[in-house]
Amino acid sequence: MNTIIISIGDELILGQTIDTNAAWLSRQLSSLGITVRKHITVGDDIDAIVGQLRRTGGISFALNNEAGDSRGSNNAADVVLVTGGLGPTDDDLTRHALAKVLETKLKLHQPSLDRIEQFFVRLNKPMSQTNRIQAMIPCGCDVLENNVGTAPGIAARIGKTSVFFLPGVPAEMKAMFDESVKDKLRQIVSAGGDKKVYAYRTLHIYGTGESNIAEILGDMMGRGRNPVVNSTAAHSIVSIRIISRGPDEEAAGALIEPVERELRRRLGDFVFGCDEDTLPSVVGGLLRRGDMTVAVAESCTGGLLAKELTDISGSSGYFKAGWVTYSNNAKIDFLRVNPATIESFGAVSEQVASDLAAGARQLAGADYGLGITGIAGPTGGTEEKPVGLVYIGLADEDGVKVARNVFPGSRDRVRRRAVNTAMDMLRLKLL
Amino acid sequence: MNTIIISIGDELILGQTIDTNAAWLSRQLSSLGITVRKHITVGDDIDAIVGQLRRTGGISFALNNEAGDSRGSNNAADVVLVTGGLGPTDDDLTRHALAKVLETKLKLHQPSLDRIEQFFVRLNKPMSQTNRIQAMIPCGCDVLENNVGTAPGIAARIGKTSVFFLPGVPAEMKAMFDESVKDKLRQIVSAGGDKKVYAYRTLHIYGTGESNIAEILGDMMGRGRNPVVNSTAAHSIVSIRIISRGPDEEAAGALIEPVERELRRRLGDFVFGCDEDTLPSVVGGLLRRGDMTVAVAESCTGGLLAKELTDISGSSGYFKAGWVTYSNNAKIDFLRVNPATIESFGAVSEQVASDLAAGARQLAGADYGLGITGIAGPTGGTEEKPVGLVYIGLADEDGVKVARNVFPGSRDRVRRRAVNTAMDMLRLKLL
Repeated sequence: MNTIIISIGDELILGQTIDTNAAWLSRQLSSLGITVRKHITVGDDIDAIVGQLRRTGGISFALNNEAGDSRGSNNAADVVLVTGGLGPTDDDLTRHALAKVLETKLKLHQPSLDRIEQFFVRLNKPMSQTNRIQAMIPCGCDVLENNVGTAPGIAARIGKTSVFFLPGVPAEMKAMFDESVKDKLRQIVSAGGDKKVYAYRTLHIYGTGESNIAEILGDMMGRGRNPVVNSTAAHSIVSIRIISRGPDEEAAGALIEPVERELRRRLGDFVFGCDEDTLPSVVGGLLRRGDMTVAVAESCTGGLLAKELTDISGSSGYFKAGWVTYSNNAKIDFLRVNPATIESFGAVSEQVASDLAAGARQLAGADYGLGITGIAGPTGGTEEKPVGLVYIGLADEDGVKVARNVFPGSRDRVRRRAVNTAMDMLRLKLL
Repeated sequence: MNTIIISIGDELILGQTIDTNAAWLSRQLSSLGITVRKHITVGDDIDAIVGQLRRTGGISFALNNEAGDSRGSNNAADVVLVTGGLGPTDDDLTRHALAKVLETKLKLHQPSLDRIEQFFVRLNKPMSQTNRIQAMIPCGCDVLENNVGTAPGIAARIGKTSVFFLPGVPAEMKAMFDESVKDKLRQIVSAGGDKKVYAYRTLHIYGTGESNIAEILGDMMGRGRNPVVNSTAAHSIVSIRIISRGPDEEAAGALIEPVERELRRRLGDFVFGCDEDTLPSVVGGLLRRGDMTVAVAESCTGGLLAKELTDISGSSGYFKAGWVTYSNNAKIDFLRVNPATIESFGAVSEQVASDLAAGARQLAGADYGLGITGIAGPTGGTEEKPVGLVYIGLADEDGVKVARNVFPGSRDRVRRRAVNTAMDMLRLKLL
C-alpha cells in the first residue's frame, strides 16, 4: 500500500518548528502494517498544497508518467495523511486547497460549527468570527470530529486516493487519528490484501549506557534480522526496540516473545519497563502494589521530581507531599536541616541530601523520602563541586542512603537526569 | 531559487527518529536568503532514492511536465541538500543511488580513506573493513571533508542542479554544512542575482487565543506581504512571527521594526516577550528587577510551577520555596489550610486556592504567593467541578485574588495551562 504523509506549514519549511507529527503518524501506520513511502513537507502556499495533493492523488496528467519511480505508470498513493493548515487564520489554506483540487466549494457544516461554539462556551470565552471558517468543509467530504480543539478534520477521496486531513496541533492530531482515522485505515488494509504486519515491543533501561548495552546484546542487534533490535537514548533512559515482521499480527507478535525474553535475561534489573511504561508509572505501580507512600524534598531539581511522580493519574494514593527548598533558609525552616550542617558541608553535600530525604519522609509520614541537592548550572560550580554534581538521598525506616552523581550537559539535562536517577533508586529499593 | 531538502533513512520513514536535520538546514538556508520549497523524506530504498534524485534534478523526462506545480515547465530544483545514507552499513545506499543517477561508478578516493584511517587511530580503535566503502565516491563528484566523523560528504551536479550530500548524524551534518557547503551556497546565491535575506522576530502572547489575535491583526496577517506575519500556538501561548525579506540583513531587519511596534500597540499586555523569552524568564526578570520574591503551593500541578520558575539559572534570587500539597493532610499540615474550609468548600475551591497562596507567601516570607488547586483529570470530575477546573490564587500584601479556570484537554495539558496561567497572573501583577 502506497502511503504518503504530507505536513503543511511555513513554520516547518522555514525550520522554526520541528515536525514531530510525521514520525508519530509513521509509527502508528507501521503498527497497522502500513509502511510509509514518503514524508513531504510544503509551506502555507496554496499552489504548493494543490500541486502536492494532485500529484499524490494521481489526478494530474503528468503523474501517470512520473518517471524515476519504480511503481509503474500510475503513481497515485493509496492513502495520504495530511497534517496542518486547518486553523482559523488566513495562512491556513488546506481546506481551500482541497476544494480547489476537488473543483468544488466550501460549505458550512452546521454540526461542526455547533461543536466549535460549544467549545468556546466550555472555555467561557466568546467565539471569534474567524473560527467559523473551521466549520467550512469542501462539498462531498466527510468530517472527522475534533474532541480536543476547534478544527474538525476532513476525509476525502482525490481520484482513487483516500486522503485524511488532520490538524497540525499534535494533541489534536493524535486524538483525531486514534478516534476517527485508525479504524478506517484498518478497513483499507484488510481490503487491500497484501499485508505485512509489524509488531513492536520496546524495553526501557535505566542505569547503563547505549554502548554497554550494544556490547551486552552484540549479535542480537545485527541488521537484516527478524526481529530487528535497535536502541535510542534520552536523558540516560535507553529504549531498546524489537521490531518483527510477519504475515499477520499473531505471527509478527510470536517472533517478539523469545527475543524479549533473552533481552530481559541479559539486562536484568536494568530493564524498568516496556512500551508505554515510564519511570513515574513504574515507580507508582510498585508503590501502589506495596501500599507504600513517598515524599520528596528538592533543591536543584526545583519541583521536577514531584511533577514527574504526580504525572500519573491516581498518584495522590502514594505521593504524600513535596518541598522545593531552593534556598538554605527553606531547607532549614521547612525540612529541619541543621544550619550547622549547611555551614560545615555546604548546601550541596551528602549530609544535606540525607537530611532532606529523612526530613521529607518524617514530616509527611511517608514510607520513603527522596532528597535532592546539587548544582544544575550553568554557573555555580567549583573545582571541588563542579556543575552537574548532584547528591540524591533515599530514606526509609532503616535510615538514609545517599548517591553521589556528576551528570554532564545543560541545566535541563542535569535536572532531568537527577530526577530519573532518584526515581530509579526508589524503583530498585521497591523491587 | 528552487531549493529542496531530502532526508534519507528508514528510521525516519518508520517514525523511530524525528528528523531535526531538515529544520536545522532550513534555518541556515533562510539566513542565506534561500527559501526551501519542500522537505522530502524517503527510506533506505535504492529505487526511492534514485527516483527522488532524478526528479529533483530534473533529469527524468516526466519532470519537465510535472503538473500541479506553478513553477513553469522545468521543475528541476536549483539546489538540493541531501542528508543520510552515507554510513558504512549495507542500508546506506545514498552513494550507490547517486552513481546510478549519474550513470557512473564508485571510485576509491584515497585522501578520504586516509582520513578515515586516521580517525580510528585517534580513537585508538581498529578500523572495520566496512568503513572502506565510505571513501568510495562516484566519478566526477567532489568530496566534502568530514572533520567530526568518518563519512565524507559529496558535492555533485545532477542535470543543472547542485546537489550536496551530507551525513545524517546531526553533529557531522552541521559541521560539514558550516565548513564546506555554506560558502558554496553563498556563491550560488550571488551568481543567481535574486538574493534575498530574511529577518525574524517572534512575539509571544498569553491570555488570548489565535483566532482572537487573527481578528485583532486582521489585515496584517495577509499573505504575500513583506513582512509576513503568522502565528502558532502551544499550551495557550501564541507565538506571532514576523518574517521580512530584503536585499541584505540591514534592509530586512528595518522592515521588522514598524510591524513589531504596531503588533505591540494592538496586543498590549498580551505580549509577554519576544524571541527566546519564555514565561518563566520574563516573570523571573520582572521579579529580579523589582527585587521581589515568590513562593508557591501546588496541588494538581504537582510541582510543575516550581519546576518552571526554577528552570531559569539564577532563580534562587527570587524563588523562596515551593510546596506540593497533593493531599488534604499536606494542605492542612504544611500550608495551614483550615480543615473546616476543605470540609465546607472542598479541596478544589476558591477558598483553598486562596489559603494556599496566602500560606505559601507567609511561610516563606515572600512578596508573592501562588496557590493552585484543581482537577487535572482524566478522572475525578463531577458535574459541578469538571475535569479541568483549576483555581489559581495570587497573594500579595493587599490580599489574595483567585481566578477560576476550566482548561480543556488531557491531564498534561490541564497542568501546563494552569502553570502558564499562574505565571501570567504574576506577570500582569508585576507590570
